[in-house]
Amino acid sequence: MKSLNGESLTTPRTIIKLDENDCREIEDVVVRETTLTVNVNSKEMATLVCSPRDQVYLAVGFLCAEGVLKRREDLRTVNLDVERGAAYIETNPDLELTDKLVVKRCITPSAGCGGTSISTTIPNPPPPISSQLKVKAETVLKLAAELQQRSRLFKRTGGVHNAALAQGEEILIFQEDIGRHNTLDKIHGQCFLEEIPRDDKMIIFSGRISSEILLKTARMRVPILISRSAPTDLALKLAEDLQITVLGFVRGKRLSIYANKERVIL
Amino acid sequence: MKSLNGESLTTPRTIIKLDENDCREIEDVVVRETTLTVNVNSKEMATLVCSPRDQVYLAVGFLCAEGVLKRREDLRTVNLDVERGAAYIETNPDLELTDKLVVKRCITPSAGCGGTSISTTIPNPPPPISSQLKVKAETVLKLAAELQQRSRLFKRTGGVHNAALAQGEEILIFQEDIGRHNTLDKIHGQCFLEEIPRDDKMIIFSGRISSEILLKTARMRVPILISRSAPTDLALKLAEDLQITVLGFVRGKRLSIYANKERVIL
Repeated sequence: MKSLNGESLTTPRTIIKLDENDCREIEDVVVRETTLTVNVNSKEMATLVCSPRDQVYLAVGFLCAEGVLKRREDLRTVNLDVERGAAYIETNPDLELTDKLVVKRCITPSAGCGGTSISTTIPNPPPPISSQLKVKAETVLKLAAELQQRSRLFKRTGGVHNAALAQGEEILIFQEDIGRHNTLDKIHGQCFLEEIPRDDKMIIFSGRISSEILLKTARMRVPILISRSAPTDLALKLAEDLQITVLGFVRGKRLSIYANKERVIL
Repeated sequence: MKSLNGESLTTPRTIIKLDENDCREIEDVVVRETTLTVNVNSKEMATLVCSPRDQVYLAVGFLCAEGVLKRREDLRTVNLDVERGAAYIETNPDLELTDKLVVKRCITPSAGCGGTSISTTIPNPPPPISSQLKVKAETVLKLAAELQQRSRLFKRTGGVHNAALAQGEEILIFQEDIGRHNTLDKIHGQCFLEEIPRDDKMIIFSGRISSEILLKTARMRVPILISRSAPTDLALKLAEDLQITVLGFVRGKRLSIYANKERVIL
């Protein structure tokens, strides 16, 4: 699937897919995740995590939404450097730019580096996880079903995200929050304060697995990450580097294994 | 629904609910949205948008995930000021804190202010939208169905978010992105560059309506915001102040009107 400006929005990946009848290796596609650094008058403003499409619209629209650009004549030039993942915007010199523009939606890994190991580009990267933990596919399905069961009431009213910390077949901590990332941070905070070890446990998560979610799991030292939703390509590169097992689209009797399959007993 | 530390996660709201058989005013609940400012050694680090529960876990876990807190002994004290929406963390004085810790997941409105008009607390707030635009309920249902139709292919592979700009029954711009906010920014950017007026148009959106999404709509000057998902209480306060019509849970033959119902023809 190609975008208007020629960049593919997805990338092929060999995964293991399990359903009621079958378990096989298939060629699938995962969604691409990239970053765009927005520079205004040679000053770095923000790094956005995004799909590789319509980056000029994104950079300009972000500055409109932040209240930086108000009238069409405020904008002099926009240049996009696809290779570097950066947009360079020059505004009308009369435009008052506040120094207090917040840096938003940043992630720590620099996606535009093009190196072989994405984790080496993270400042202060967590080491790989060498846990010997294994999990049965049927346990993964049970845990995902329980996450959904527990979240049903609140979901009806809110459309929130959920995450749980599990050991074996048991959910030890359950969190829900309007912020996808907060659910993991809350689990991490509780584990830190109560000194709960994590290298023998799993995370079950309702949301998509972006690089930031993967990195949160790595810093929590949890070796297995299970989601009802999809992972991005960048998250999977990190998962390989940091030796985290990633399962996605875990729903009903189905699941897909995206990275470090050796921890899953089929 | 009460949380462990006594704060309610939802708040009651009178809405208009339409389904195949009926259209009536009902007492419903919407999910609460709040902010938590995380201060480390008297220095403001980040403001997180979150549900009002387990804020201490959130503050501590956020700092763990950012790599600030590594060992239990790094943390000396945590204090939560629920009234101010702030957590105060003191670390071991030997802990090296980088000045480069990024400020993340910020929103512009200050939720903890307690004033009657939330929009007055936004720096450089957009004025209310006085558009005379009206839309039929059946048009809203059609547009939401078309958004879903268009996004089906990509959703299968990615679990991305979608947004569209529509006039009457026609979708003029369609965007999809791994980032919920980016879909709106991309539409805003295209409109800005191509000088497309917005006060006679609608946004149809796949994601939840948080205060940040509402504010993006306001800055785009779009008077009607339609979502397949739920709004937060803070977004609805902003919607009232800024005179934006909000429809949520628009699915199949159902919809709910949450704010400024006079623009909807039932």
